[in-house]
Amino acid sequence: MIDRDRCLALDAADPLRAFREEFVLPEGVIYLVGNSLGALPRRAADRVRRAVEQEWGGQLVGGWNQAGWYDQPLALGDRIAPLIGAGPGEVVVGNSTSIAIYQAVAAALRLRPDRRVIVSDARNFPTDHYVVQGLAGLLGGYEIRDAAEGRFDDAAVVLLSEVDYRTGARADVPAVTARAHEAGALMVWDLCHSVGAMPVDVSAADFAVGCTYKYLNAGPGAPAFLYVSPRHHATAENVLQGWHGHAAPFAFETGYRPAEGIRRFAVGTPHVLSSAALDAALEIWERVPMDLLRAKSMALTSLFVDLVGDLLELVSPADAEARGSQVSLRHPDGYPVMRALIDRGVHGDFRAPDILRFGFAPLYIRYVDVHDAAATLREVLDKELWRDERYAQRLAVT
Amino acid sequence: MIDRDRCLALDAADPLRAFREEFVLPEGVIYLVGNSLGALPRRAADRVRRAVEQEWGGQLVGGWNQAGWYDQPLALGDRIAPLIGAGPGEVVVGNSTSIAIYQAVAAALRLRPDRRVIVSDARNFPTDHYVVQGLAGLLGGYEIRDAAEGRFDDAAVVLLSEVDYRTGARADVPAVTARAHEAGALMVWDLCHSVGAMPVDVSAADFAVGCTYKYLNAGPGAPAFLYVSPRHHATAENVLQGWHGHAAPFAFETGYRPAEGIRRFAVGTPHVLSSAALDAALEIWERVPMDLLRAKSMALTSLFVDLVGDLLELVSPADAEARGSQVSLRHPDGYPVMRALIDRGVHGDFRAPDILRFGFAPLYIRYVDVHDAAATLREVLDKELWRDERYAQRLAVT
Repeated sequence: MIDRDRCLALDAADPLRAFREEFVLPEGVIYLVGNSLGALPRRAADRVRRAVEQEWGGQLVGGWNQAGWYDQPLALGDRIAPLIGAGPGEVVVGNSTSIAIYQAVAAALRLRPDRRVIVSDARNFPTDHYVVQGLAGLLGGYEIRDAAEGRFDDAAVVLLSEVDYRTGARADVPAVTARAHEAGALMVWDLCHSVGAMPVDVSAADFAVGCTYKYLNAGPGAPAFLYVSPRHHATAENVLQGWHGHAAPFAFETGYRPAEGIRRFAVGTPHVLSSAALDAALEIWERVPMDLLRAKSMALTSLFVDLVGDLLELVSPADAEARGSQVSLRHPDGYPVMRALIDRGVHGDFRAPDILRFGFAPLYIRYVDVHDAAATLREVLDKELWRDERYAQRLAVT
Repeated sequence: MIDRDRCLALDAADPLRAFREEFVLPEGVIYLVGNSLGALPRRAADRVRRAVEQEWGGQLVGGWNQAGWYDQPLALGDRIAPLIGAGPGEVVVGNSTSIAIYQAVAAALRLRPDRRVIVSDARNFPTDHYVVQGLAGLLGGYEIRDAAEGRFDDAAVVLLSEVDYRTGARADVPAVTARAHEAGALMVWDLCHSVGAMPVDVSAADFAVGCTYKYLNAGPGAPAFLYVSPRHHATAENVLQGWHGHAAPFAFETGYRPAEGIRRFAVGTPHVLSSAALDAALEIWERVPMDLLRAKSMALTSLFVDLVGDLLELVSPADAEARGSQVSLRHPDGYPVMRALIDRGVHGDFRAPDILRFGFAPLYIRYVDVHDAAATLREVLDKELWRDERYAQRLAVT
């Protein structure tokens, strides 16, 4: 078994080790929840302060021009594009993932008016499935087919996640996209749990959505992004027709004329303060070699599996290539076990009914953190420390 | 004519004068664009810094419980409620006005399935009308009738603004709401240009939406709010079914079950940093006597009309009671006139084709500001200073 000194040596040789200094990480905490909310980049704190004090406070409404607020949704999209295999003018930032999914699936349905089947994964992150249910309910006449059935025939659109939020299982994006296209369906990928965790390439797909507050580290409630393949730019419709998607939003015309290109998928006034944090977070990503990131991610998750695989059932795929940057383990009393871990400085999270999730953000998690987290988990289980009644009490957000 | 000394005396006697100290106002600027983007409250800068550094940076994902992020959309809604005549549990904060309009109008259409007419004002702020056009296009079979026709018969829903963004004209909310109800329609009010500018009461209406970045001073791209009358809470549907509107979002169920009450109108992950600024801005509103606010607002707009009414055609109603907190004037070369004013420290804005807009936020605009702005406008027009060719060049955002 790999020991602590060996982990320290791996950290010393880690080509990504300098990135950890970019982040604020509380003392005494091993933060394995970067797959839920990424840590604060130091430069994001400075950037948000500048957006508030200099832009809002100093330029006031002039910030639309001077600080570039108006162009932010596209400018930020262009900087996310390389992380998902997209090009400039193909990604727009704004709103939330739920809303981006609504836009993508609705646009896909409009592009396939002769079809009445939506394929969605009932085990997918719930908001994806809920959004589809809401849209199908509004439109009427659609069948929602569970992706577990494995049939794409007659589907208008297939909506899947590249990495499963619960298990960490990674889909084969090129193969599934090709299968959807062979069936005549359009493909929408949810990248929430893959973007920033590994190289992503959705250039063959039709639409993709993702959030920026997990591995991308843009802060709580940071805006989402929406990718639309350029082959659909002339024909895809944004059913959420807000003024920022208009060809001339400041002409205040009475009729909606969609903007050219990806801008038509903008909706309302952009969330400038949240976007400022994203702006800073993306400066870091411009310097990250994604192949090294993936290599470290696989090494971290493999190390954790090696260290604790004998303790609990592994829910994630055993093959690192088939995983995202997380490890999920099963325990019937997963909730108090996680509370006991957090009480000892090891922060993961719990997903009902029995999943312990540990996310390994390669930019700031070290090999020694994995070692120490595994040792703490072993102690909590060996000594049954989780049986303390304090840990049974549920918090509002688990 | 009222002179500058008299304005200084009015300021000294103004019962709201202390509120100006709450705001950051750049030196040498008379900021008459608070109806577009409110000024920065000093406490908002502090509050956002705390959200970034202490909540995100220090609590990380624990902020959902410790900092109350999860409850923010409802907690903030409860604090907006008194400003619009609503009660606790009737207002939810999030997303943008465009999206809130989509939710409100779609919910109204679902509550009136036997009707196929949407009444909307073609002169309304464009995003309202665009959103309706997009929704009608998605659903098919709906007629959009211009409110200028004055007929509500057979309408499923009537969507209007309390204060017109262009002219500043104020609608008679109780009378129009009653007329809509007599016709069997549901009433949706857009409060963007009235909330924070005057006492508002939409308690008789069915839905209302508004933004928080204008008179409420919550910052660029701050989240919008949505009011739903409690008589519709059990039956109104949110067609944007995101996980934060679910009865048990952290149970990760596969089927959507709407939450009880107003929470069902939440959608995705709330924009926490933008919400922090709103949190601080609302602390100020808790101390504002709305009758005094309205009295000062009417005095300010009336003073401006008195001082410049001979110079340009008044687009706003001549009767202060019939206006919001803005004055709109017409000039065929409105764009360079406004640029010339801004160059001299008087900030208003321009709305195509020929409207000069001046907003008077009563919390931080003084009588002497109105006097000086009017004097500058007179000079710009008398000396034709706006003919300088620098002022003809259009900026991206006007």
